[in-house]
Amino acid sequence: MTTPVTFYFDPISPYAWLASKALGRIDAIGGEIDFQPVLFAGLLNAHGQKGPAEIPAKRRYIFRDVLREATRAGLLFKAPPGHPFNPLQALRMCLAVTDPAARRRFAMTMLAACWEQGRDISDTAELKRIAFESNLDGDAVEAAARQASIKVQLAADTEQAIQQGVFGVPTFQVGTELFWGADRVHSLLRYMQGARIDEAALAAILARPASAQR
Amino acid sequence: MTTPVTFYFDPISPYAWLASKALGRIDAIGGEIDFQPVLFAGLLNAHGQKGPAEIPAKRRYIFRDVLREATRAGLLFKAPPGHPFNPLQALRMCLAVTDPAARRRFAMTMLAACWEQGRDISDTAELKRIAFESNLDGDAVEAAARQASIKVQLAADTEQAIQQGVFGVPTFQVGTELFWGADRVHSLLRYMQGARIDEAALAAILARPASAQR
Repeated sequence: MTTPVTFYFDPISPYAWLASKALGRIDAIGGEIDFQPVLFAGLLNAHGQKGPAEIPAKRRYIFRDVLREATRAGLLFKAPPGHPFNPLQALRMCLAVTDPAARRRFAMTMLAACWEQGRDISDTAELKRIAFESNLDGDAVEAAARQASIKVQLAADTEQAIQQGVFGVPTFQVGTELFWGADRVHSLLRYMQGARIDEAALAAILARPASAQR
Repeated sequence: MTTPVTFYFDPISPYAWLASKALGRIDAIGGEIDFQPVLFAGLLNAHGQKGPAEIPAKRRYIFRDVLREATRAGLLFKAPPGHPFNPLQALRMCLAVTDPAARRRFAMTMLAACWEQGRDISDTAELKRIAFESNLDGDAVEAAARQASIKVQLAADTEQAIQQGVFGVPTFQVGTELFWGADRVHSLLRYMQGARIDEAALAAILARPASAQR
């Protein structure tokens, strides 16, 4: 029995890269992972949030945390030449690869190129090389990504994610259930294996009013 | 050999409660935990951030996530009658308890009262009862918390935390090293046991420019 799992990602997030290293554990229990590119900046705009890289103390913390987590996992962490960078071309080229297995291969190679190898994935020539390294025709992928329909689709897919309640990346979705963050893979795995919560109790808690505001 | 560990908390955060359940693991390897109350709203203001409860999709997600984590840990999760609530009296009464062991006992009882027992810790009478349950004189703690110096100290301690780079709760600090979130206790434990990162590599990464902005 397989379980469809949507993996919302934007390669701008190093946690999306860390999460990608755990996908084998989801495969292993029957997850069928669908790589869904979304524009993180679009999620932030929709929810009126600042990005972690836009808060200096948080930016410093996040890179330290990611290096600690990478070191623990035995992963090389070089990080890209500039950050934040413009991820639009990377996201559009991912979307332009429609075969799920090929898209996964391309996205995995791209995430590793950016965070492990320190390559600039805002650069189209680099992205074409990454496509070739993923056994894809980089020129064809780049041409496909230039279509107006791909731009429209990235915006629509990001909007669709927002409608589902997605506010950050990486996020995993199974049915209507969301799991946010590289450190919630354990929670996703438990859910896939049947763990459930008391929905009535949760609904009652969520229905309670705020008793103070800032 | 003991290691001083500062535990920055505000009982308004259910993750501060979840983190409090892991403190025994820090004690076990020689952590000397200092409970440091800080006003979460003050951290948010300083960094220009919205709180999770101020973003509807994130609020819904957070309570679901906390209930999942609590269920996994076998913890009862009732949550308070209203949220967000005003935590000022709770924080000030914590600060008014100066003995570290007594403050820890009071804070632990308070976190459990709020999140496991569903009690209203914005209410002074309830806080006095919690003090009594913590083997403290609730009337004396309440009287001490009324001093102007306690108000000043809470603001100063929050400002001091911000200067240290704290942007959320719970946060653990050892030396200048910060560990943010109930799910970073593993990282703190590793650090206490000697794990280090490549500081030169991290400094070089942090010095790189942004190559795009929203």
